[in-house]
Amino acid sequence: MPKYKGYFIDLDGTVYRGKHRIPAARRFIERLQAKKIPFLFVTNNTTKMPVDVVRNLSDNHDIHVKPENVYTAGLATADYLDDIADPGKENRTVFVVGEKGLKQALMQKGFVITPHHPKFVTVALDDQATYKDFAIATLAIQHGATFIGTNIDTNIPNEKGMLPGAGALVDMVRYATQTQPIVIGKPKTIILRNALKLIGLKKDQVVMVGDNYMTDISAAINFGMDSLLVYTGVSTPQQIATKKIKPTYQIKSLDQWKL
Amino acid sequence: MPKYKGYFIDLDGTVYRGKHRIPAARRFIERLQAKKIPFLFVTNNTTKMPVDVVRNLSDNHDIHVKPENVYTAGLATADYLDDIADPGKENRTVFVVGEKGLKQALMQKGFVITPHHPKFVTVALDDQATYKDFAIATLAIQHGATFIGTNIDTNIPNEKGMLPGAGALVDMVRYATQTQPIVIGKPKTIILRNALKLIGLKKDQVVMVGDNYMTDISAAINFGMDSLLVYTGVSTPQQIATKKIKPTYQIKSLDQWKL
Repeated sequence: MPKYKGYFIDLDGTVYRGKHRIPAARRFIERLQAKKIPFLFVTNNTTKMPVDVVRNLSDNHDIHVKPENVYTAGLATADYLDDIADPGKENRTVFVVGEKGLKQALMQKGFVITPHHPKFVTVALDDQATYKDFAIATLAIQHGATFIGTNIDTNIPNEKGMLPGAGALVDMVRYATQTQPIVIGKPKTIILRNALKLIGLKKDQVVMVGDNYMTDISAAINFGMDSLLVYTGVSTPQQIATKKIKPTYQIKSLDQWKL
Repeated sequence: MPKYKGYFIDLDGTVYRGKHRIPAARRFIERLQAKKIPFLFVTNNTTKMPVDVVRNLSDNHDIHVKPENVYTAGLATADYLDDIADPGKENRTVFVVGEKGLKQALMQKGFVITPHHPKFVTVALDDQATYKDFAIATLAIQHGATFIGTNIDTNIPNEKGMLPGAGALVDMVRYATQTQPIVIGKPKTIILRNALKLIGLKKDQVVMVGDNYMTDISAAINFGMDSLLVYTGVSTPQQIATKKIKPTYQIKSLDQWKL
């Protein structure tokens, strides 16, 4: 096993499981910190800001990291729009179906959030979204706004069950506009490409660590990056046995992984 | 051309065009009435009740019909649930994403509308729908409720443009539940099957009249019923030239149609 110079790490299922701790994950993060190996939590979450993620890790899981260690699909969406927006203030306008984590990230990049003739429409998980929001998004895209979906997760688990995920909201707008969105989050690769810029390493120096073949591992495969599947979450060895393209590595616990 | 004993007639694009009148359609309805030939307006609308449809035709289009002449996808959904619900009051419970036309139709068939453990979930156009509604619908279907989509229209035109149609709302719940809905409205055939029961005729005695190949004519083709495409709305002769299965008849104006 090669020594990687940097790590991308998924959160739910990998570092914790909902409210449950995964002690091997805490030890893994502490080993990275002791060796000063750079790492980013690369997450499809768009509702939280990095400080919120840090606080959750600290308060509920005894894992202590910095906001700079967190790269959400909200941040990745803002970075992507920052890259592709034409120069000029009037081109940095966006209509957002989404929550605080996405809105803050966009505003920090100088975007103005508006329902009036936006250049971009971003659709993410938003538990306050209404038909009127979808109507504004649909009309704006019909009028030429670029359609961005932060991620295509089918569901978001909460204590009540598997609620509609960002992908369900994105899919509604796709259906109404008959337009395919640009998707930022895993299993798509824009989030990894931007995370690589942020960590300042080359693709073959970094490995993507996650529990979910369909998102974490597929993103790494799609991007051409090594992957490490840890069986503490969604995917099972039985499922992976049926996959043509395997993760680079498969382990039961992050304790097994030598840095 | 055979003499049909009954007519199913689409509304928007066929009998009127938004707020614009189609005088040949008014004359066609008056000829049907003079000859006492039974007809039903078969419409994917679920927001209006038949009395609302009648009032719109009367007030804005000088077309005078009875509520009994109107068969909406809302009514067809209620008739379908009435058919398939198990006996017993406890089995006549439904969670509705949808407006008055659908809710009234369901209540008139003795269904109780509730978010708590419904046996059915119906999803229709609803301009007051929120994420919370979609979450309730998604969880109920995951817990075993039967998923009904009233129709799969991509858009609903209004003065602002092409807003998300019922199909966009249905598609969101389909994505979040990974469950295919039972669809009632055109181009699916349940609405026609139920309309046929209501008009009391056989399939080969009735023709479906409409302007839209993708909904009206496709429904008739799927159901095995004759169809009459009138070029006063969505479909054009150029589009129909590319279709393998043609409408039974194509005309420019309902004035050309002999009863």
